[in-house]
Amino acid sequence: MSVTHTLAEFVADAEDGALPDWTIHEAKRTLLNLLAISLSASRSDDAKIIIDWARHEGCHERASIVGSDLRTSQSTAALVNGYLCHLQDYDDTHFPTVLHPTAPVWPAVLAAAEEAGANGLATLAAFVLGAETACRVAISVHPWHYDAGWHITGTAGVFGAAAGAGRVLGLEPRELVAALGAAGTRASGVREVFGSHGKPLHAGQAASSGVQAASWARAGFTASDDIIGGRRGFWAVLSPAGHSEEALLYDLGERWELRMNGLKPYANGVVSHPLQDAVIELRNAHELTADQVASIEARVHPLVPELMGKTDPRVGLEGKFSFRHCAAAALVDGAGHDAQFTDEKVKDPVIAAVRKKVLATVDESVREDEVYVTIKLTDGTQHDIHVEHATGSPENPMSDIVLRAKYDALAREVLTAERADELWHAVWTLDEAPDVAAVTELMQLPRK
Amino acid sequence: MSVTHTLAEFVADAEDGALPDWTIHEAKRTLLNLLAISLSASRSDDAKIIIDWARHEGCHERASIVGSDLRTSQSTAALVNGYLCHLQDYDDTHFPTVLHPTAPVWPAVLAAAEEAGANGLATLAAFVLGAETACRVAISVHPWHYDAGWHITGTAGVFGAAAGAGRVLGLEPRELVAALGAAGTRASGVREVFGSHGKPLHAGQAASSGVQAASWARAGFTASDDIIGGRRGFWAVLSPAGHSEEALLYDLGERWELRMNGLKPYANGVVSHPLQDAVIELRNAHELTADQVASIEARVHPLVPELMGKTDPRVGLEGKFSFRHCAAAALVDGAGHDAQFTDEKVKDPVIAAVRKKVLATVDESVREDEVYVTIKLTDGTQHDIHVEHATGSPENPMSDIVLRAKYDALAREVLTAERADELWHAVWTLDEAPDVAAVTELMQLPRK
Repeated sequence: MSVTHTLAEFVADAEDGALPDWTIHEAKRTLLNLLAISLSASRSDDAKIIIDWARHEGCHERASIVGSDLRTSQSTAALVNGYLCHLQDYDDTHFPTVLHPTAPVWPAVLAAAEEAGANGLATLAAFVLGAETACRVAISVHPWHYDAGWHITGTAGVFGAAAGAGRVLGLEPRELVAALGAAGTRASGVREVFGSHGKPLHAGQAASSGVQAASWARAGFTASDDIIGGRRGFWAVLSPAGHSEEALLYDLGERWELRMNGLKPYANGVVSHPLQDAVIELRNAHELTADQVASIEARVHPLVPELMGKTDPRVGLEGKFSFRHCAAAALVDGAGHDAQFTDEKVKDPVIAAVRKKVLATVDESVREDEVYVTIKLTDGTQHDIHVEHATGSPENPMSDIVLRAKYDALAREVLTAERADELWHAVWTLDEAPDVAAVTELMQLPRK
Repeated sequence: MSVTHTLAEFVADAEDGALPDWTIHEAKRTLLNLLAISLSASRSDDAKIIIDWARHEGCHERASIVGSDLRTSQSTAALVNGYLCHLQDYDDTHFPTVLHPTAPVWPAVLAAAEEAGANGLATLAAFVLGAETACRVAISVHPWHYDAGWHITGTAGVFGAAAGAGRVLGLEPRELVAALGAAGTRASGVREVFGSHGKPLHAGQAASSGVQAASWARAGFTASDDIIGGRRGFWAVLSPAGHSEEALLYDLGERWELRMNGLKPYANGVVSHPLQDAVIELRNAHELTADQVASIEARVHPLVPELMGKTDPRVGLEGKFSFRHCAAAALVDGAGHDAQFTDEKVKDPVIAAVRKKVLATVDESVREDEVYVTIKLTDGTQHDIHVEHATGSPENPMSDIVLRAKYDALAREVLTAERADELWHAVWTLDEAPDVAAVTELMQLPRK
């Protein structure tokens, strides 16, 4: 039996009710995270290009686009929602591979479930199985594939999107092999376009290709028997430097890669997350204000100044590459969402003043998800903290409470507090819902 | 200036009227060939899967699908028309690279032109420039890229589709660079799926991605400055074993790759085309019938028995891999369209009897596009012929008369003779037409 077929059988034959409870809980959390960041992203000009295009396509109204009043075809909705989810680089990360599993998989699963009328538990389970597929394919080619220049979220993501959508449609293993073939031969996305609209497009394209592949396979579309391991398949052509069948299949159904998937508390690179954690914890514990602070001193991993050493950011995006700005905004606002990385925020005189007081010393013995911080106040008081594992790392998953704070901050940029609250609860009880309609309706702008 | 920018300037700045006349003539011929084979392909169950899906998508009616009554969005129409054009492997071939330029490029150009209301000459010129782009990108990575397992029609084709559609939309060089970036980062298609629906999908996907990329770029979509030559761009990631910038740019605007692009007279692999030419020429010259024939003896290139050695085909598809069937059908029907490769045809007792009389001797000195054939009749008569260059090879392009015969045979499977004739003339006079409406309307089934 081909490796593709083995994976397809796993996805097709799993029972919704037999998946570990925590995986269903995690599926809800990833969906809430998607909704928060996609709602926030939907307001931007970057989003408008793609949402306007979807409106122009004008397909039958079968699947909903987050943060708009637009319903469209499955494949168009999947493309837009995947794009929105990855637009701010604020989605989840599978730490072993830097794959972002939610952005390609959830939009495909949600669009398929919305049209097919799948129940809530089946939909959550389909995401778990789709995400597992994407992560397994990613692991099997890591690190060779990413190092060669591929954006693994697009290339491995499309397998997860097809598996998740195919699961919703109830495909048999044989049909799922065809769906994975039709999707996998469209695996694409190179790192050359990082820093442009091309990057989030990869996630959208993967979601869209996956949902198309699943529906074509159900209609009799044929593809390879082994798109992953075949002579001219994914491994051979997109990862010639190496692959591991064992890594793909090891403990399949026992070990779940969602365990290694973290949600981001801050809308910037992960290396400064421990610093932001530390500053926010001290700020909240001691109710610190900007005018009290004499200095923020940190002992950090070497990558912090290397990747985020921008001293004097002048526009919002530069703020994301300045650990000083991250720490200053954390102290002043107690947060690190996209709202803390606007042009206005980097020019804010209060934040700029704190920024100048942030000092970092590199310490080779400090891990990447670790930090030691001392905040000295103008009255001579000193507060120390040691963050061992940053929030959102596998050793310290973001709590539901922190997720709620992130969700509220972002979802309320677009929805009323009441509607955001209803949506939160709709996801939280999705496993008991007869369909996904409450979620897909509430995630949209109210229709006039 | 990046290599992508150089190519974009060439495409954006060329003047419609300044292109050599023969390239416009060739653009018409490739379009007629597309229409013939797509009309024929549209009747199959393989086509139905994708056409039904497009109908289900239900987009605004802006672009037409060949051989159906369905109008849909640009990107959906481009996907379906690209798929139909490549479905029977009966489209044109760029001999230096085995790229099939029409299937990804024309559907993108036609869909863009239909919505934008471009005039006929501008549309033909856009195809010429898009095809040139696809061929140039293909040449720049040949043979490394194809040898690595990529289906070059999908991967290089998407650049041509974006260039052609972008040209129709009047993109400036800067926008065209973005369009090539948005398209090129979605370059995909592995040879693993050859022999399945996945193969024609590559052409459709390329056409669709190209037309999307062009419209997004016009709306401000950003991508890489150099998707082709950038550090993690097309060359580096999809052809790490080698590439040639010189081959991409050599004599750009002076040398035209359409010169090396051949139309297929027969719906099977090119290696037996000289044999089919020879048999048909003798058949027509001497009005030969099956019962007269004692033997058909051929001296052939070694690849003929190697690639097409199936002795006793039992289903239609196997007939395409049997030079004996190709020769027998050529003698009995005087043709080699898909109609000669049905299950019925391979079981036809008259053809099966001739098949047994076909003998081939391998001769290392015979070129791939060459053959020596002797037909011996039961009355002792003998007819000899030497085909130096098969029809459709660069040295012996298919004549307009042979193209017309192919077109009539295939288009009339779907359209009335009168409508097929009108469509032929609409293409032939397209350079004088104010828009492409006559072509896109006549290529469809009449609306009820």
